[in-house]
Amino acid sequence: MISEIDLIRRIRHQADTAGHGLHKGIGDDCAVIAPPGGTVLHLLTTDTLVEGVHFDLAWHPAEMLGRKAVAVNVSDVSAMGGVARFALLSLAVPDATETGFVDAFLRGFMDGVRQHRLVLIGGDTVRSGQGLVLSITMLGEVAPGQVLYRSGARVGDQIWVSGYLGEAAAGLEICRRGLPHEGHDFLHLVRAHLDPVPETSLGPALAVSGLVTAMIDMSDGLGSDLAHICEESGLGAKVRAEWLPISEPTRQLAARCGLDPVRLAISGGEDYRLLFTAPPFAASRIRELASLAMGGQLFVVGEMMAEQGVLLDGYAPLADIAYLGYDHFGGRQ
Amino acid sequence: MISEIDLIRRIRHQADTAGHGLHKGIGDDCAVIAPPGGTVLHLLTTDTLVEGVHFDLAWHPAEMLGRKAVAVNVSDVSAMGGVARFALLSLAVPDATETGFVDAFLRGFMDGVRQHRLVLIGGDTVRSGQGLVLSITMLGEVAPGQVLYRSGARVGDQIWVSGYLGEAAAGLEICRRGLPHEGHDFLHLVRAHLDPVPETSLGPALAVSGLVTAMIDMSDGLGSDLAHICEESGLGAKVRAEWLPISEPTRQLAARCGLDPVRLAISGGEDYRLLFTAPPFAASRIRELASLAMGGQLFVVGEMMAEQGVLLDGYAPLADIAYLGYDHFGGRQ
Repeated sequence: MISEIDLIRRIRHQADTAGHGLHKGIGDDCAVIAPPGGTVLHLLTTDTLVEGVHFDLAWHPAEMLGRKAVAVNVSDVSAMGGVARFALLSLAVPDATETGFVDAFLRGFMDGVRQHRLVLIGGDTVRSGQGLVLSITMLGEVAPGQVLYRSGARVGDQIWVSGYLGEAAAGLEICRRGLPHEGHDFLHLVRAHLDPVPETSLGPALAVSGLVTAMIDMSDGLGSDLAHICEESGLGAKVRAEWLPISEPTRQLAARCGLDPVRLAISGGEDYRLLFTAPPFAASRIRELASLAMGGQLFVVGEMMAEQGVLLDGYAPLADIAYLGYDHFGGRQ
Repeated sequence: MISEIDLIRRIRHQADTAGHGLHKGIGDDCAVIAPPGGTVLHLLTTDTLVEGVHFDLAWHPAEMLGRKAVAVNVSDVSAMGGVARFALLSLAVPDATETGFVDAFLRGFMDGVRQHRLVLIGGDTVRSGQGLVLSITMLGEVAPGQVLYRSGARVGDQIWVSGYLGEAAAGLEICRRGLPHEGHDFLHLVRAHLDPVPETSLGPALAVSGLVTAMIDMSDGLGSDLAHICEESGLGAKVRAEWLPISEPTRQLAARCGLDPVRLAISGGEDYRLLFTAPPFAASRIRELASLAMGGQLFVVGEMMAEQGVLLDGYAPLADIAYLGYDHFGGRQ
C-alpha cells in the first residue's frame, strides 16, 4: 500500500516544475501558466472525489454534492489569489444510477457554476464499474503580480485562518452517527460538511493587498496544510493550542461523542477556510480588509519559525502535527 | 440507466457554450479559450479511464496504460489542430495497489509526457474504493486562425480517415480471447489497442493547410464520431462500405473469431486516427501534406450530404450507423 503523500512525492520527483510559460507546476493549490502574450496568468487545478472515500450518498444529497464539487475547486483558485473562470466535469457513473440522481447532481453543480460566475466548458462521461467518481478541473485567472504561493512564508510571520476549524469534520461525525440536527446548532456543522462555501472574496482581496506572504486552502486539516506551507517555504511553525478557533457547536459535538475538539480542529480537514501567513505589522490592515471582503472572522493561530516541524504548543499528547490529517489512502490517522 | 449520449446532452443543455473569452465550450474535442491579450488560443480537454470499463489490467501492462492515458488526450488536442503543452493527472488508486504497479504506470505516463514534449503540472491522488480511475486533463495551444472544429463540414466534402479502422478493436478481441500474437501479424493489432499513437504531426499540419473543414479524433468508432461531425455541422453523411480501410490482420482476426470486419471498422472505437472533411478539389494537396507530416496512409471513406443520417452504402444489414459504436454506459451496442 502506498500513501497519498508518498505518491505525490513520487510523481513530483518525475515532473518538471518550471520553464517555457510555466510559473509553477506541481506543489501548490494550482499550477500557474503564462499564456504567450497574455495579460493574466492562468491557474489550473483538478480534484477527484470518490464515492465511499470523499462522500457518502447515504447522507449527501445529490444537489449539495454537485455544489460541493464546484466549491472545493473554486477554493483552490481563491487560495492562489485568483478568480475561477471555466470548469470541466468528468463523471464516472455506475450502471444502477437513476436519472433523477444525475439531474439533481447537475442541478447543484450548475447552481455552483452560476453562483461563482463560471462557465462549464467540457468534460467526460463514462461508466463506472463501482461507485461514482467525480473529477473536476478548473481554470482561473490572476494578475501576474498578485499570485500567492505556499512558498513565501518568512520567520516570525503570523499564521492566520479565516474561520472556525473542525466544523466540517464535526458535521461528518453527525452524519456518520445519524445524530438529529434539524433546528439545532448541529445543522450549521452538517452544512459545513455537505455544502462548504469557499473564500472567493477574501482570497483575491488578500492577494491584492500585498500583505500576505503565503496562502493555501484548508482541505486536509491544519496540520497537513500548514506542513505544506512549511515544506514549500523551508520553515517550521508553532501553533498555539489555546488560540485554535473551535466553535461552541463543535465543542458540544465533541463532548457528546467523546471526541477531542483539538484533534477535530487540526486534523479534521475539509474546512475550506484559507490558511495564510503575514508579518505581524500587517495584522490590523488584514483585519480591516477581511471585514470589507467577507463577513466572517480571522484568527491568528501561531507563528512561523526557522526550526523544522509543525509544533502544537500547550497541548501535551500531540507534539509534531505535520501531515496529521486525513490521508485519502490510509484513512484517518 | 442513463446512456452516455443522453448524459452529455443533459449537461450540454445546461451549459453556456460561448462568451467572455470562450470560443467553444462543450461539443468538440477540446474547449477553446482566448486568454486576455494572448497571441494563442488555449485548448482544454479531459478524459477519464476506468478499470474494467476502458482498460483491463489482466492484459494491459501498467507502463503502456500510462502511455495510453497521455496519448488519448494528446489526440484530442491534435484533432483541433493544436499542440499539447501541459498535463494534469488525477489518480484514484485502490488500497491493494502495489508500489511497483504505480511506478510502472508513472514511468509510462512520464515517457508519454516527454515524448510529446509536455509538462506534468499538477493533479490529484486519492484512494479508490474499487478499481483504478485515471482522469487526465490537457492544455494545448493553437494559433487563432488555425483551430478546426467538428462543425465546419459542407455538403459534398469528402470524408477522410488517417489510417486503418478497427485495428484497436481487433487487438482488444485478441487480448480478451487470449490469442497468441507474439511474432505474429496480430502483434500490431494488440499494440494498436494497448499503446496507440496519436496524430500529433498530421493534425496541426491539416489545420495550418486551410484545406480541411471539420475534424475529430476517432475514439468511439467511425459511426459515432462521424455522427458528431454531422450533428455539429447540421448535415448527414454517406460512407461507402467498400472504401473502408480494413487491414489484412484485422480481416484475419475477424475470420478467425467469426466477427464482421466492417462492424469492427465502424463501431470498434479507440483507433485514435483523425476523421476529417475537405472539399474534393483539395484531395491531392491533402495527400501531399500527409506524406510530409506522417508516414501513414489517408483514405477517403465517403462524402457529406444535406440529408440527415449517417448511411453505410453497399452493406445490407446496416443502414444508419449514426452513434453505432461503443457506449461507455451501455456497453457494445
